[in-house]
Amino acid sequence: MALVVHKYGGSSVGTIERIRAVAQRCAAVRAAGDDLAVVVSAMKGETDRLLGLAAALSALPDRREQDVLVATGEQVSVALLAIALRELGCAARSFLGHQVRILTDSSFNNARIRDIDDAELRGALARGQVAVVAGFQGIDAAGNITTLGRGGSDTTAVAVAAALGAARCDIFTDVDGVYTADPNVCAAARKLDHVSYEEMLELASLGAKVLQIRSVAIASKYRLPVHTRSSFNDRPGTWLVESYPMMEDVVVLAVAHDLNQAQIQLADVPDRPGIAAMVFGALAADDINVDMIIQGVGADARNDVSFTVRKEDLERARRIVERVAGELGAAAPVLRPDVCKVSVVGQGMRHHAGVAARMFSTLAAQGINILSISTSEIKVSCVIDARYAELAVRTLHDAFIGA
Amino acid sequence: MALVVHKYGGSSVGTIERIRAVAQRCAAVRAAGDDLAVVVSAMKGETDRLLGLAAALSALPDRREQDVLVATGEQVSVALLAIALRELGCAARSFLGHQVRILTDSSFNNARIRDIDDAELRGALARGQVAVVAGFQGIDAAGNITTLGRGGSDTTAVAVAAALGAARCDIFTDVDGVYTADPNVCAAARKLDHVSYEEMLELASLGAKVLQIRSVAIASKYRLPVHTRSSFNDRPGTWLVESYPMMEDVVVLAVAHDLNQAQIQLADVPDRPGIAAMVFGALAADDINVDMIIQGVGADARNDVSFTVRKEDLERARRIVERVAGELGAAAPVLRPDVCKVSVVGQGMRHHAGVAARMFSTLAAQGINILSISTSEIKVSCVIDARYAELAVRTLHDAFIGA
Repeated sequence: MALVVHKYGGSSVGTIERIRAVAQRCAAVRAAGDDLAVVVSAMKGETDRLLGLAAALSALPDRREQDVLVATGEQVSVALLAIALRELGCAARSFLGHQVRILTDSSFNNARIRDIDDAELRGALARGQVAVVAGFQGIDAAGNITTLGRGGSDTTAVAVAAALGAARCDIFTDVDGVYTADPNVCAAARKLDHVSYEEMLELASLGAKVLQIRSVAIASKYRLPVHTRSSFNDRPGTWLVESYPMMEDVVVLAVAHDLNQAQIQLADVPDRPGIAAMVFGALAADDINVDMIIQGVGADARNDVSFTVRKEDLERARRIVERVAGELGAAAPVLRPDVCKVSVVGQGMRHHAGVAARMFSTLAAQGINILSISTSEIKVSCVIDARYAELAVRTLHDAFIGA
Repeated sequence: MALVVHKYGGSSVGTIERIRAVAQRCAAVRAAGDDLAVVVSAMKGETDRLLGLAAALSALPDRREQDVLVATGEQVSVALLAIALRELGCAARSFLGHQVRILTDSSFNNARIRDIDDAELRGALARGQVAVVAGFQGIDAAGNITTLGRGGSDTTAVAVAAALGAARCDIFTDVDGVYTADPNVCAAARKLDHVSYEEMLELASLGAKVLQIRSVAIASKYRLPVHTRSSFNDRPGTWLVESYPMMEDVVVLAVAHDLNQAQIQLADVPDRPGIAAMVFGALAADDINVDMIIQGVGADARNDVSFTVRKEDLERARRIVERVAGELGAAAPVLRPDVCKVSVVGQGMRHHAGVAARMFSTLAAQGINILSISTSEIKVSCVIDARYAELAVRTLHDAFIGA
């Protein structure tokens, strides 16, 4: 008898029929004798519907209130799943963020979990109930509702599993697992049986949408086995583990791409200490994640700086950068709203030189211009014009993994 | 500078445009220098949409989980109104039941408020914020989400106004106030300027949908002036007060009718002590409100008992009564799912005999059969077949109030 945690994404609970199917799957786990906590997302489309209501009232809705608004999506899901489980005769009880309680910091829209109180959940499990936990949401020390950012339900699930010391966490989604590339873009992509935490951290940060990166970091910290799989069939998915056989023989494990990127270029910035801190400090103060930073020395001791942000942050970032540019006497920033970050990832790269060079020549052979480059021990990323995204992914997959 | 409480019903916040209009009305109150707490319902149709999802999963959804589900409706409304107020430059902060905190008992779907902590609300008002409070919802001592029953947002508003010692509570709705009869049924109905708490208690319990009865009881207890009025114009509505001039000169103030009634008849019940307690005790244990009870002595020391319940409780009541009838050796209950309770109400009735007799003869003259009768000092109610409801209301209005 084990304690397991399931997580179901928005498409897995997107309709009444699918909620019923999820309830049947959960009831089968209980019938087999395992204890079960299940974390659910909002029904597919619901978060966007709610954000649309807020957007109709304000171009920049208050972030605290936006969290109050969107947290209702998961609240609806947990209530419906608990109702469906009880209809099957399976004891169940829903938990909201403040009922668990999932304590977070106060970064509305993108809060981080600080602590999970496991007492109420353990009480429900001890009573034989399935604990149905709202993903994505928490509560800060002052009692405000917070949300964990897009994909935050993965983080809730892995954090709940870690807090409960679960044997494993099954992440049910609408895809069969982690692929060597996005199968919608690259027909040659194939499902991976295993991915290491370290590789998955890179893949998640590079645009693979299977898991939120913070959930991978927590799984890695607690050495929690995570099984990401489809809720629409019973086939095995991809196991996220510390290590797996043969992993160093594979140089490039996967090709990732991220179209949710926009580039901001700031030319003619004075070349003196503290300028970068000023630009990126102002962006960080507004919780804007910045990536793929390049700084080049120009003429007259003035620099060019470029970086990428997520598309949804572009408008906020533009306002901040225009203000800072004005204060610095720099030119107005140039925006490239449609770029793509394409990356190759693999732990085996540590022991193989020349991956970066081969990636650049592969892209060059297709006439694809590289706007910026970033590397780590186990990945190489390039920013390119978004229109070449699919071509780049297919070509790199052919070159490194196989057609 | 006064402290006032506004309450907006579902149709007043039913669309983005209406939420914006409510925000403008609230901002004007703040601009005039008054402190403001505003209680809002779910957007029109939302509660029914959510209940429909639950009904698709279960004929009798778990009541705790149903409250978790429907409480999201008001949560969406408070977030959107706070966003709209901030967009107008008006400081505002939303409060959910557990954030206020509105402590209730644990009667899911129909909880009663035990206590309202005014500290957080006063803090917001002191900071110059409009306190936007979710109606209809509370939290019990164990941290479960509860709801106050249909129309419960009125109760939230009046209870919040009482807790804050507000100068008055304005209930904004989609009608202009309290009428002498339902204007949709009776063209001769006219708006009342004043109604006493006692009269409104009767009217609310008899089917007038303007205010939830518990809100009237709280207003009466705290002598809180309540102004029920339309959110779509600035005309004065109906004031709910302790007393008003001339009130005893009016014999019948209004005709009320309630179509949300079903009758259950139990024949051949043994005539021995404790039987009524057994039947009605079992119904009360399941929180089913019973009304218009009649017990007639039949032959062989066996009785007939009939009573009405709300239509939504009929199915639950039927199951309970069938079980009890079986235990008693009584015949299976007879259900009349479509009946109407029609009533005449007025404080002046205390000093005028013959209102009941005149009511019966008025109905008889139209050939309307009376199924049961109930009277109090200030009202007479009759249960009739639902198909005669409109005819009965018009005829009684003509006879007692004027064509």
